[in-house]
Amino acid sequence: MAAGDVGAIDGGWVASRDGVIVATGRDDAWERLELTPSAPILDAGGAVVMPGFVDPHTHLCYAGHRWDEFVARRSGADYLAVLERGGGIHATVRATREATDDALLGNLRARLLTAGVLGTTTIEVKSGYGLEPDEELRQLRLIARARADSPIDVAPTYLALHALPTQRAEDRKAFILAAAKAVAIVAAEGLAEAVDAFVEKGVFEIDEVRPIAKAAREAGLAITLHADQLNDVGATEFAARMKARSADHVANASADGLRALARAAIPAVLLPGSAFFVGYAAPDARRFLTANVPIAIATDHNPGTSPLVGMPAAIALAVTLCGLTPHEAIVASTINAAHALGRGERTGALVKGRRTDLVILATDDERELAYGLGAPLVVATYAAGTLIQGLQRSVDQE
Amino acid sequence: MAAGDVGAIDGGWVASRDGVIVATGRDDAWERLELTPSAPILDAGGAVVMPGFVDPHTHLCYAGHRWDEFVARRSGADYLAVLERGGGIHATVRATREATDDALLGNLRARLLTAGVLGTTTIEVKSGYGLEPDEELRQLRLIARARADSPIDVAPTYLALHALPTQRAEDRKAFILAAAKAVAIVAAEGLAEAVDAFVEKGVFEIDEVRPIAKAAREAGLAITLHADQLNDVGATEFAARMKARSADHVANASADGLRALARAAIPAVLLPGSAFFVGYAAPDARRFLTANVPIAIATDHNPGTSPLVGMPAAIALAVTLCGLTPHEAIVASTINAAHALGRGERTGALVKGRRTDLVILATDDERELAYGLGAPLVVATYAAGTLIQGLQRSVDQE
Repeated sequence: MAAGDVGAIDGGWVASRDGVIVATGRDDAWERLELTPSAPILDAGGAVVMPGFVDPHTHLCYAGHRWDEFVARRSGADYLAVLERGGGIHATVRATREATDDALLGNLRARLLTAGVLGTTTIEVKSGYGLEPDEELRQLRLIARARADSPIDVAPTYLALHALPTQRAEDRKAFILAAAKAVAIVAAEGLAEAVDAFVEKGVFEIDEVRPIAKAAREAGLAITLHADQLNDVGATEFAARMKARSADHVANASADGLRALARAAIPAVLLPGSAFFVGYAAPDARRFLTANVPIAIATDHNPGTSPLVGMPAAIALAVTLCGLTPHEAIVASTINAAHALGRGERTGALVKGRRTDLVILATDDERELAYGLGAPLVVATYAAGTLIQGLQRSVDQE
Repeated sequence: MAAGDVGAIDGGWVASRDGVIVATGRDDAWERLELTPSAPILDAGGAVVMPGFVDPHTHLCYAGHRWDEFVARRSGADYLAVLERGGGIHATVRATREATDDALLGNLRARLLTAGVLGTTTIEVKSGYGLEPDEELRQLRLIARARADSPIDVAPTYLALHALPTQRAEDRKAFILAAAKAVAIVAAEGLAEAVDAFVEKGVFEIDEVRPIAKAAREAGLAITLHADQLNDVGATEFAARMKARSADHVANASADGLRALARAAIPAVLLPGSAFFVGYAAPDARRFLTANVPIAIATDHNPGTSPLVGMPAAIALAVTLCGLTPHEAIVASTINAAHALGRGERTGALVKGRRTDLVILATDDERELAYGLGAPLVVATYAAGTLIQGLQRSVDQE
């Protein structure tokens, strides 16, 4: 099934067995299915039933927050300046390294559950707040533990180059070499499906990312990149040359970069949350669509630049800030996002053979996702056919 | 109690009787209260307990939606141009006039309940999609019915001048005269606490609003204005001269306008939702704070320019787009918003003698409201001491 097709049916139904969609149809045709006598029948009462959201770019594994930094940035400090002062990501690295395994795991599990309650059934989770390989491996092992009992499907990514550790300032080459070596360990332990790097002016250059990408390829892992977020450094073209799984951010990708993505059919993952919170111009979706680049959207949830929670808010921001139509945003947050995680045949559409990943909305018009910012629209989320039960939200009464 | 003080207590508690706060304190001092034996004790477990939100500017009573218009605007049509073509508000006026009483009332009740579930305990609701006085009275009577059984406190406003009905194009003076006459009927029937008008270039001029303001004063109703939203037309100064209850929007208010509000201690109600969705520059909160103008914030929920739902999203937008700090935004959405509705002594703070209007958050840090855009942070809302139960959100199982 191609990117762009979510399998929409007016007045439709979905039949599921063992977490997999076994049939779909419209109107009363379901009555001719041979159901087992105990099969439950759920009536959504005319409400929208749609594929579960796929969030293809998150940094969910971290401790602490950096809310003070948001206030500082508004007083004029830009993100790269905050970074150079040892704030920004380095504050989260410190907090994450200092947190116990139990604390990190508790945070991560709670965030996965919240994502599920808000309709996400597949989510990418990056490491990246350890920086040193040993700390990155610790995070990936915690992500693996959370993944094992997560109600939603977790796609782990080793973010090998996120920032240079402050104590490595004189030692860039050795640091990059160590990160490249860690890729083989990550692959051997099955800790990640992909390897990521932050390619940006003043962060990491393309030539520095090359050994990481090479190691990923040799280890059989996919490549994905933080590309051209704040400046065009040619990272989008590089992503295409590396046959990356996706090129993410891309707010400042050049026309050549877009042509390269289109030729290689690589999805651009747009992240309007960071544009909104940091205050830079969000990527213009029309540029990508005109260039035939498939678009996915993600929360980019992270404590420093996109504290956004859940895909409905990401959809609303993508529509208003990037200029997607509501239906384009739904495609971008389901089937296209599944493709961006190499899961284009597994989820993202309500068609036979996919996982029964679906969401029921409190509306009969899915466009409300795009405009009802803040509305509690997700009534129920089923991941592989199982209802995700939210945290106990009532207060104790003695 | 002054604007700006919400009565914050670290490790605090609140005691309520008959919907009114009878005591507050910290730590274990509540054990010395003489409780009735059956009094329930709720333990929020260290989570934030804060005053219920006050949403001081909404247009909740309408039928239909105008989502297509958002896409059109993005293609270059500006709001006043859409209006001139008979789109914009006129589309909602048609849909609202055509809707049955039951349909309008059902919509309105559902929206009030959703607002309550999201933490709002007091809300302003304007008429304004009838335009002709008879239709406006119909809407106000429906608002009165919804108010009578609403779980949250509803402050109704007669929006007397919102747009000139298309069939009245040759007849401005007669239309305005009829609206001014309707003010007395509204007051006699107790249908509104305040009268509002949209003062804007190409909509209504100050001289046209004067008879409405005069009628409001004579009828003992408060005045509030949509002032200087898109252009500075001197409406903010006019609001101050009229001793308005609040001046709303004010994104383009002049320095003189701000000085006039400060002198009269009139709150400016900032509406970041419409700035976000329409794409104009949101009001800069620092300008108002520096000028000593009390700031309130509101959703401005309406189908055309701010489909935003609930105060948590309004807070997040106000912090990022208007530059409020998280704590300033909380003050702006509670005690200051209560002042903007003439309820500064009734709600908006957790202090003895106020209504027991409170919200329990799923966090121990209230600043998460400002940054966790999309997060389901409101665990429970109590309006006058009664828990607001949400709509049945589960799906029917046969």
